[in-house]
Amino acid sequence: MVNHKLWGGRFEASLEDWVEEFGASIGFDYRLAPYDLQGSLAHVKMLGQTGIIAPEEAAAIQAGLEKLLVRYQAGELEFDVRNEDIHMNMEALLTEEIGPVAGKLHTARSRNDQVATDMHLYLKDQIGQIADKLLNLRQVLLNLAEEHVETIMPGYTHLQHAQPISFAHHLLAYYQMFSRDSQRFAFNLEHTNLSPLGAAALAGTTFSIDRELTADLLGFKGIYHNSLDAVSDRDFILEFLSNSSILIMHLSRLCEELINWCSYEYGFVSLSDTFSTGSSIMPQKKNPDMAELIRGKSGRVYGHLFSLLTVMKSLPLAYNKDLQEDKEGMFDTVDTIQKSLDIMAGMLSSMTVNKEKMLVSTQQDFSNATELADYLAKKGLPFREAHEIVGKLVLECSKAGYYLQDIPLSRYQEVSSLIEEDIYQALESQTAVQKRNSLGGTGFAQIRQELERAKRQLEK
Amino acid sequence: MVNHKLWGGRFEASLEDWVEEFGASIGFDYRLAPYDLQGSLAHVKMLGQTGIIAPEEAAAIQAGLEKLLVRYQAGELEFDVRNEDIHMNMEALLTEEIGPVAGKLHTARSRNDQVATDMHLYLKDQIGQIADKLLNLRQVLLNLAEEHVETIMPGYTHLQHAQPISFAHHLLAYYQMFSRDSQRFAFNLEHTNLSPLGAAALAGTTFSIDRELTADLLGFKGIYHNSLDAVSDRDFILEFLSNSSILIMHLSRLCEELINWCSYEYGFVSLSDTFSTGSSIMPQKKNPDMAELIRGKSGRVYGHLFSLLTVMKSLPLAYNKDLQEDKEGMFDTVDTIQKSLDIMAGMLSSMTVNKEKMLVSTQQDFSNATELADYLAKKGLPFREAHEIVGKLVLECSKAGYYLQDIPLSRYQEVSSLIEEDIYQALESQTAVQKRNSLGGTGFAQIRQELERAKRQLEK
Amino acid sequence: MVNHKLWGGRFEASLEDWVEEFGASIGFDYRLAPYDLQGSLAHVKMLGQTGIIAPEEAAAIQAGLEKLLVRYQAGELEFDVRNEDIHMNMEALLTEEIGPVAGKLHTARSRNDQVATDMHLYLKDQIGQIADKLLNLRQVLLNLAEEHVETIMPGYTHLQHAQPISFAHHLLAYYQMFSRDSQRFAFNLEHTNLSPLGAAALAGTTFSIDRELTADLLGFKGIYHNSLDAVSDRDFILEFLSNSSILIMHLSRLCEELINWCSYEYGFVSLSDTFSTGSSIMPQKKNPDMAELIRGKSGRVYGHLFSLLTVMKSLPLAYNKDLQEDKEGMFDTVDTIQKSLDIMAGMLSSMTVNKEKMLVSTQQDFSNATELADYLAKKGLPFREAHEIVGKLVLECSKAGYYLQDIPLSRYQEVSSLIEEDIYQALESQTAVQKRNSLGGTGFAQIRQELERAKRQLEK
Amino acid sequence: MVNHKLWGGRFEASLEDWVEEFGASIGFDYRLAPYDLQGSLAHVKMLGQTGIIAPEEAAAIQAGLEKLLVRYQAGELEFDVRNEDIHMNMEALLTEEIGPVAGKLHTARSRNDQVATDMHLYLKDQIGQIADKLLNLRQVLLNLAEEHVETIMPGYTHLQHAQPISFAHHLLAYYQMFSRDSQRFAFNLEHTNLSPLGAAALAGTTFSIDRELTADLLGFKGIYHNSLDAVSDRDFILEFLSNSSILIMHLSRLCEELINWCSYEYGFVSLSDTFSTGSSIMPQKKNPDMAELIRGKSGRVYGHLFSLLTVMKSLPLAYNKDLQEDKEGMFDTVDTIQKSLDIMAGMLSSMTVNKEKMLVSTQQDFSNATELADYLAKKGLPFREAHEIVGKLVLECSKAGYYLQDIPLSRYQEVSSLIEEDIYQALESQTAVQKRNSLGGTGFAQIRQELERAKRQLEK
Repeated sequence: MVNHKLWGGRFEASLEDWVEEFGASIGFDYRLAPYDLQGSLAHVKMLGQTGIIAPEEAAAIQAGLEKLLVRYQAGELEFDVRNEDIHMNMEALLTEEIGPVAGKLHTARSRNDQVATDMHLYLKDQIGQIADKLLNLRQVLLNLAEEHVETIMPGYTHLQHAQPISFAHHLLAYYQMFSRDSQRFAFNLEHTNLSPLGAAALAGTTFSIDRELTADLLGFKGIYHNSLDAVSDRDFILEFLSNSSILIMHLSRLCEELINWCSYEYGFVSLSDTFSTGSSIMPQKKNPDMAELIRGKSGRVYGHLFSLLTVMKSLPLAYNKDLQEDKEGMFDTVDTIQKSLDIMAGMLSSMTVNKEKMLVSTQQDFSNATELADYLAKKGLPFREAHEIVGKLVLECSKAGYYLQDIPLSRYQEVSSLIEEDIYQALESQTAVQKRNSLGGTGFAQIRQELERAKRQLEK
Repeated sequence: MVNHKLWGGRFEASLEDWVEEFGASIGFDYRLAPYDLQGSLAHVKMLGQTGIIAPEEAAAIQAGLEKLLVRYQAGELEFDVRNEDIHMNMEALLTEEIGPVAGKLHTARSRNDQVATDMHLYLKDQIGQIADKLLNLRQVLLNLAEEHVETIMPGYTHLQHAQPISFAHHLLAYYQMFSRDSQRFAFNLEHTNLSPLGAAALAGTTFSIDRELTADLLGFKGIYHNSLDAVSDRDFILEFLSNSSILIMHLSRLCEELINWCSYEYGFVSLSDTFSTGSSIMPQKKNPDMAELIRGKSGRVYGHLFSLLTVMKSLPLAYNKDLQEDKEGMFDTVDTIQKSLDIMAGMLSSMTVNKEKMLVSTQQDFSNATELADYLAKKGLPFREAHEIVGKLVLECSKAGYYLQDIPLSRYQEVSSLIEEDIYQALESQTAVQKRNSLGGTGFAQIRQELERAKRQLEK
Repeated sequence: MVNHKLWGGRFEASLEDWVEEFGASIGFDYRLAPYDLQGSLAHVKMLGQTGIIAPEEAAAIQAGLEKLLVRYQAGELEFDVRNEDIHMNMEALLTEEIGPVAGKLHTARSRNDQVATDMHLYLKDQIGQIADKLLNLRQVLLNLAEEHVETIMPGYTHLQHAQPISFAHHLLAYYQMFSRDSQRFAFNLEHTNLSPLGAAALAGTTFSIDRELTADLLGFKGIYHNSLDAVSDRDFILEFLSNSSILIMHLSRLCEELINWCSYEYGFVSLSDTFSTGSSIMPQKKNPDMAELIRGKSGRVYGHLFSLLTVMKSLPLAYNKDLQEDKEGMFDTVDTIQKSLDIMAGMLSSMTVNKEKMLVSTQQDFSNATELADYLAKKGLPFREAHEIVGKLVLECSKAGYYLQDIPLSRYQEVSSLIEEDIYQALESQTAVQKRNSLGGTGFAQIRQELERAKRQLEK
Repeated sequence: MVNHKLWGGRFEASLEDWVEEFGASIGFDYRLAPYDLQGSLAHVKMLGQTGIIAPEEAAAIQAGLEKLLVRYQAGELEFDVRNEDIHMNMEALLTEEIGPVAGKLHTARSRNDQVATDMHLYLKDQIGQIADKLLNLRQVLLNLAEEHVETIMPGYTHLQHAQPISFAHHLLAYYQMFSRDSQRFAFNLEHTNLSPLGAAALAGTTFSIDRELTADLLGFKGIYHNSLDAVSDRDFILEFLSNSSILIMHLSRLCEELINWCSYEYGFVSLSDTFSTGSSIMPQKKNPDMAELIRGKSGRVYGHLFSLLTVMKSLPLAYNKDLQEDKEGMFDTVDTIQKSLDIMAGMLSSMTVNKEKMLVSTQQDFSNATELADYLAKKGLPFREAHEIVGKLVLECSKAGYYLQDIPLSRYQEVSSLIEEDIYQALESQTAVQKRNSLGGTGFAQIRQELERAKRQLEK
């Protein structure tokens, strides 16, 4: 392969190899190859159509690029670290294919707008895939919720039993989070779906290019309206990393809960073997490795966000080499998010829910205390007084080793004449859940309504 | 003031003071006071209208809350750290005003949904103010750009002179960044403008509340559809902190440039005395303190983003006390962003631009090298060859101590017969800027067009 | 109070108030007051002794500073935001006390070295207090461990029961972490305990000052040997923030465990009422608020570290106003760490341990599976084969609903003739713990030895 | 290669490939190969010597491991993602070499202590290399400083000319920073140089292992004294990442300055071609790419620190799969730091310093204003008054377009009778530098003394 350094003319000393390698990005930006070819194809078509280069030159270059694309798809392109980055590698390969006319491809273009174009094309593509995987995960949650509308579990605050809830309700909370994630990526797409091509090095070009044509050819919805901004903007990547951080945060919360739920102490769910692993020393272990790993991967995604924010801090316009540091974190985030979404969907779909264990744990606790307080409040006692009475009864029970449902009616009536026989029904966890039928509440009817709403949303 | 602990009934030992203080949030959440009163007013109206409490009770509570609002606006409310947070303080104050009926305000509500409601109301309000300040800053940039369409300055890449550009073009690059910031806050508002009120502790309530009514009364555009999500969601704050991080990053870039520009070496601008300070030891110093400070404040805003991401990582549903840590960073970010925007607008409006210094620095450099390369390319030389020729000439000039415009025509023609007399005009920086008239480029006509587009945008 | 701006001479326009307030640090750096006075006292003594100012001038200034110190200690000093920072406030106050001779205090000194001196004095003092609180926490852990050498609990990996361990062993793991924290702060002290005083604005001074004298007077162990470094170094704060981040991470892990342990599902410990709170809506709740809050405060401390790293990134020498952003995060970290350490110590000292619950949960699980594998391995079976056999038996038990200790000997002998009657003793959790007597293991003898080592360490 | 999953016995379903790949670490932990072999060699020697396995078994395993080491060094080991991690790969390879006796290597060891051991060995090695490279960079700075003791440049605060300084003094400020970095890595080594081997899964082992023997064989200075801590501690990596963050922050500051210095506006230095690159579109560009890249790499290193802090936050004891996320960031930081140190050393050694440009820029500015103020102060004027007078003269000069050295003596004497003929000598930048001879100041004598001190330090 021809080692073709673009700035060859001015330099007297050649870059020493190790420095060259430090500066080279081909070790990771080879991922941009198909997007780079796509960008070059659009550019050369435009150069030909506008007459900036001769039609036959454009045709030759186009043919060469198409050959490279075929070779790329066949896995036959090899890149050379001496050619520094994906753009120089492609130019060297094109020169091999079609000779010096390849040099005309770079007319009215710079690597600054070229790399920006590649990144926009790449990320647009990946956000699309992430959006699909998010939809899939949301569907999985809906399916699971549908099965578990009447599965009762303890609802927690401060990791203490608070009030019994429907397991479907808990799942739908995550559905809501992931729905907002979908919206964030859709918004992110707006800023990604813009063409920087034609900004040239920083200032636009003296050639009479047609930026709208290249934007159209590349399927972009709009263009950057300022060339300095076009080459130095990384907001679309920062938005992507922020959105990914919020998403992986949601995943980390769900993972934490799964890890708790499949522990010995909870025993609420059992993960399928596919998503668990064993121990090299302890044969009984069935570890929720995948859930732990996704939880741990929050660190990596947060880190990438912070990296790029640091890189961008106080960077003067326009292009600076610091910006090369925008890629690896983005690539790794794309991989991490895509795989985490798939694995989460698989893990949820395949897990076994121990309904009995969930229910029982709402029957031997004080999570029905609010029921008693509400019962009293509804009979006219100010809420604060009701709260005090219940607090005392809970303490009494705790000391004696039984629960509210075990208090005899006589004792209840000593405490308050407002309490009658129907209290026992009110204290059942099934009743407690069913009756929380305020909009967005855990009542079964509410959940069924929310499931319908969510399904209609997903169908759109 | 009555020290009224909500959970008084159950506890045998009282919280020691220092622990109490550690857990108390009233030291910072007093900021939420007007929003908390607003939320309570909507809640009590709803309780009255739905008949959950008696109309006269509702009226009494409403009157009490309105008195507190008046006292708050008059700066007469005093809070007590023993009452832990803004909600308990307000309840204690209300009890003082109207006696035990105050206890009924808490019917069908929990501090979990109450604090979420306060935060949504607060942030919605602040985002509105930030949006205004962003608009103002964008207007300032447009005004300044309008004055400087034909002000020539060096365009930089790698902080090296690259190609001459219009100063307006440089300013408009920032206009673009701040426009995207505006869009991000507008999107953020969507998720902020939702009512969590009625989610109660975590599961909804058995009372037949009307969440849509309270949402309407509070001016919210929609409601949370899952009660667990409503009390544990902090996405809207994370979005706010991400958007603020990207915005302060943009400000830090502009500050860095201002600091460079007003240095001895550049001398491009002079900041007004209002935005500079002197030195206690060096009488000649006029320091761009405000620009440095805003640049430095990027650290604080990034830090707040990462704080909350850390807090949220792997937090199980629903409310956990960790979430109390969501406030201070948000408050401080609101203050920082609002002040930074105002100061940046003031700094730009009042600075003096040294046009002459800018222009001269494009006349004694090689930033017209691209002109020569483009000149040759337009006459048919492949761009790479043109680039090589120019590279050699630049080296020749550097060694001899003169510039491309100083090379005699004879020497030019030795190098390439394509070069003619009109080369000297092409090498002028004025020409170079004017001719970069591709869409979004630095050409004067382009800039004027962009200015029009931007003005129309702002008017909307 | 005299409004005395140091750079008054050069400025024609006065700073507008709101800009002034943005730039002012007195809102937070008033904390440095006693350290600033201390630094000034040392400086003026030196100025007097070296004859840089007249002895009577030195005496007058010293007397004035001492008065201010007395007034400060009595809580009688008032600061004015118009005087920007603690240094200017002090100078204005001193001028009020002693008239224009106060101006001589600033001879051979700049605010740049002055603020650096204040920060070193402050942090040195605070690190000392943190070191004491860490010692106290370590002592609390040792005391608790001493009580619980033979308290058996499940040891977890992946939050699954792995092998039974001693509760003391678990506590001593945290003792180790906090011991490393102590070492880190001790190391941090080395870089904090250095005097920047005398570096002046950036370059040293033409006055023949005696930096070693001021360092001695201030109790510093050494001095900065480069004046540019002295005024722009913030490594000592970064070290402090890193160390604090690692420490709060350790605390967050312990908090997570406490939160788990006091949950309904575990029931291993019960926190004292002092460190728990109740719920406004759910009377039965006893929430581990303090543990949650400390866990959440990891966000804040991490955030402060990243703030300062961001501020420092790519900051040219020497002093820049960005550096003013070094203070608030440091102050807040100091407060957070000190209070968190105290509360953790209190929480651990006062909690109730439910030994029975811990023990029982090691008797109805498979955490003795390793015992069986080791048993076989010790009789000569390659470990991997032993592991396979145990894996199969665990699966067999799980399906049938019993544990390894419930398998009859006959079945054991079918599986492997190596298994004999003594297997049942080996499977007891008490035995399992006792026998892990390798150095640093959970065996009781080991733990007792480690307790002795730790006590000797603490006594030093 | 044998696909040998350690936990084979218990699982009914096999892990699907893509999940397996997500969980596998062999894609990056292959780097630990030589350390893993080293650790196994020590372990098997110990197993043999203590009689835990038979001497001939130990010998067979040792021989097998040594063959693997030879094959590794020859680049002939191939790893298989189906074997998940480096440990399982090594076991599979060993089994291929020596058959089932390989299974005995895992006696009294777990992957939990094995991976911790590998990481300690790896990092200890790398910290050693970093320490050497830091020494080299410090030496380069000393050499350069030695050449430039009398090279005068402007000293900056707020990026404004403050006072003239020696270029050597500026370089020595960085020498100080890197010296503290060296100390931090030396401290970090203390916590890295400890053996976790023998902690087994989490609780130690029932085998009578000799942990001190394995620690000795591996060259560790000490051992972990608590087995839970040994397998779950990552402090040594966090310390490494913190230290690296502080170091790269220092490098980013120096890079920022180099980038400024080699700009058109400053022209203080010229980087050698080896450390610069050209532009594909602008032939005149010579970009300080390497300096920009190192500056940008601060983002990556900060990000890795934050990643691991996030991973560790609230992680319960002992091993969790989240901890697998500790590796990639550490590896990448090691690479980044090592290369950045080498490149910085090369860049500094090979750059050309334009002494004349530096000097001239101190002669046409007001950086001698302090000289005038000090001159007056030494003649008895209170510093504040001197400061005011100089401020006014600077303003007068600025308006008239000349400098302090251009003011006629008559005008000086109008302003203050204290000013005499010798003022002109005092105003020369050479004099100004020379006279700042306070300890650690920029005076030539001081610098020479500091150079001697630094040289003695480095020789140690």
